[in-house]
Amino acid sequence: MPKISHKADALPASAIRKLVPFADAAEAKGIHVFHLNIGAPDIKSPDCALDAVHNLSLHHVSYTHSAGLPSLRRKLVEGYYKKVGIDISQEELIVTIGGSEAIEIAMSVCCDDGDDILIMEPYYTNYNTFCRKLNLHLRTVHTNIRDGFKMPDMSEFEKALTPKTRAVFINNPGNPTGTIYSKETIMEIGKFCLEHDLFLISDEVYREFCYTDEPYFSAMNIPGLEQHVIMVDSVSKRYNLCGARTGMFVSRNKEVMTAAMKYAQARLSPPLIGQKASEGAIDAPQEYFDSVREEYIRRRDYTLKRLNAMEGVFSPVPMGAFYTLAELPIDDSESFAKWLLTSFSINSQTTMVTPAKSFYSNPADGMRQVRIAYVLEVPELEKALDILEEALKQYPGRTLR
Amino acid sequence: MPKISHKADALPASAIRKLVPFADAAEAKGIHVFHLNIGAPDIKSPDCALDAVHNLSLHHVSYTHSAGLPSLRRKLVEGYYKKVGIDISQEELIVTIGGSEAIEIAMSVCCDDGDDILIMEPYYTNYNTFCRKLNLHLRTVHTNIRDGFKMPDMSEFEKALTPKTRAVFINNPGNPTGTIYSKETIMEIGKFCLEHDLFLISDEVYREFCYTDEPYFSAMNIPGLEQHVIMVDSVSKRYNLCGARTGMFVSRNKEVMTAAMKYAQARLSPPLIGQKASEGAIDAPQEYFDSVREEYIRRRDYTLKRLNAMEGVFSPVPMGAFYTLAELPIDDSESFAKWLLTSFSINSQTTMVTPAKSFYSNPADGMRQVRIAYVLEVPELEKALDILEEALKQYPGRTLR
Repeated sequence: MPKISHKADALPASAIRKLVPFADAAEAKGIHVFHLNIGAPDIKSPDCALDAVHNLSLHHVSYTHSAGLPSLRRKLVEGYYKKVGIDISQEELIVTIGGSEAIEIAMSVCCDDGDDILIMEPYYTNYNTFCRKLNLHLRTVHTNIRDGFKMPDMSEFEKALTPKTRAVFINNPGNPTGTIYSKETIMEIGKFCLEHDLFLISDEVYREFCYTDEPYFSAMNIPGLEQHVIMVDSVSKRYNLCGARTGMFVSRNKEVMTAAMKYAQARLSPPLIGQKASEGAIDAPQEYFDSVREEYIRRRDYTLKRLNAMEGVFSPVPMGAFYTLAELPIDDSESFAKWLLTSFSINSQTTMVTPAKSFYSNPADGMRQVRIAYVLEVPELEKALDILEEALKQYPGRTLR
Repeated sequence: MPKISHKADALPASAIRKLVPFADAAEAKGIHVFHLNIGAPDIKSPDCALDAVHNLSLHHVSYTHSAGLPSLRRKLVEGYYKKVGIDISQEELIVTIGGSEAIEIAMSVCCDDGDDILIMEPYYTNYNTFCRKLNLHLRTVHTNIRDGFKMPDMSEFEKALTPKTRAVFINNPGNPTGTIYSKETIMEIGKFCLEHDLFLISDEVYREFCYTDEPYFSAMNIPGLEQHVIMVDSVSKRYNLCGARTGMFVSRNKEVMTAAMKYAQARLSPPLIGQKASEGAIDAPQEYFDSVREEYIRRRDYTLKRLNAMEGVFSPVPMGAFYTLAELPIDDSESFAKWLLTSFSINSQTTMVTPAKSFYSNPADGMRQVRIAYVLEVPELEKALDILEEALKQYPGRTLR
């Protein structure tokens, strides 16, 4: 029997999804699982997106241009990016299969095997998975839960730099921390990239989920950095179209776009119907975003109040996205998350959270932390957090510090 | 300004899609382009597939399980594979983002960097692109247009074998040749894989496009090879759902499936609506396939008769898929294909074909060959082939042998 490759064998299983079999098993036993483990919101997509699907007149479902439907690209440029102050042309945008593909293409275009990417930790764990697939290394700058993941001094970036560093990767607002970087911070990072001739890959998929009144500042708008920036974007979270798998790869660097197109062409085409839904979604009125934002502020405030009222729990208030990292009085977040699914329930209900170990270069840093996605309505969050609170009392690995 | 990676720079542009900008330019000038260059059929999808999209009751477009919708996986296993004599369980199937993703995952699971994959040439050019992305090498066994791409003796496979060979890759029916491998051939290849402990990756996306009366024999049914075979499949061609991006990765090897799931989880989810369309499509009656088959036989017969009647043109009759490779009286297939788009038209119409150079390890072998996808109705094929015939007379690089 042939053996699978060492590389596939060593690839880390997604921390966010690897507990899924235990959740499936719990659900098969009739236990209701509150999914706070994944950024899959329950909010309705804008009607214009759903109408675009229902009104689709289809003869067959064809491939689209490898860079996406021209009509969608035009509408993204004119109807969305222009409105949020990002001035790009259609040629500077490729529609990808979700933000995930845009990330992988961005890394591939910037880095050769063995190269380094600089990133602040804790980070979205799949960034590391993509690096492993591509033989790249993430070099991390640590940020600390106890001071609210405050942006470190740029000297920390200098320290993490190696001769093999080709890009800085930022996620703004950030998953899993919910951190938003100010214009000043983004400008500082841009200056660093310019000085060291690095690409800046900016994952901005949570752009519309900002709960401060400060205007959002995109890396695309750093003056003088036009040739360095690759923006990763997606309609998934913005319009609750996660399953549309419509992402965006954006850069003003022609060489970058030419290279990215080769990757896009190899996989032929992004999904057609999701692109049609996305095209419809762009007509969503500002009130849609406003009401979604209000709803998330409500959910965040409730979640954070509850978490920080639990004995031994600490979670800094996130300013963006819809996640928070919480430090819990537990021995091992992975064991705890698994225990919740296999050995604990209240009235046949339990809660699923994501262990934070894989968000850090040193898993020990996330040993006592979990990521909570506040993606349910408050009454559901209430039940989910009631369960978490009781679980923390009963968990055999409880360790108050 | 930072430089893109050497690897991205060196990645070959898709031969099938790299002429697209010239086609776009021709169309922008008002020229109608007959697209014989890409396997994008014009045939209607089954009504049950389109109805599944229109009747979809959506609140939001959510992620699905990383392995695909359980309902789709079940239906594929029970409603499709069982019917075509492939006996698998739901756990042995992962829904991928088109066949393309299944290919890339299969290669990743079988091979480490620097490993070899054995394949018959001419082959689908993107197999090579995926290998380049993954630092793998295709080792080719040559087949010849002049003898109808006849399967070579297995001793040729022995010769192409290296200590780094991890898998044999077959595409049955084959793109670009339209070759179908008999049960005996598949069994021979299976025996070779067993002897040398190799994986057998079998791309069977054209399974329903067989124009012989011999029953199709899937690599999944080679006795004793259950742990070696990975089947790549897709609904794209079968139901004219190319843009659904629903592919399948199938294996009975548990270790393979566990590894494949890690790749599937990293990209979160295949597209939801395409999966719903695919689920609907499985209800398509046998008459759907029968009428599609008849239509393709009509198109194939017409195309081959026309091609072989042109002076200096030779194309062996394909028995499957919807492509044929044709040797033309030209100096360079890439120059010719480009010339058709930039410098030739009849009544503001021209024809697009795919140069075959990138289908061979030695591009010179495909220098005078093009791939023609007979994916238009006969009256359209007639116009497209009239243009090709006249173009061959006028092309400055015409070289009769």
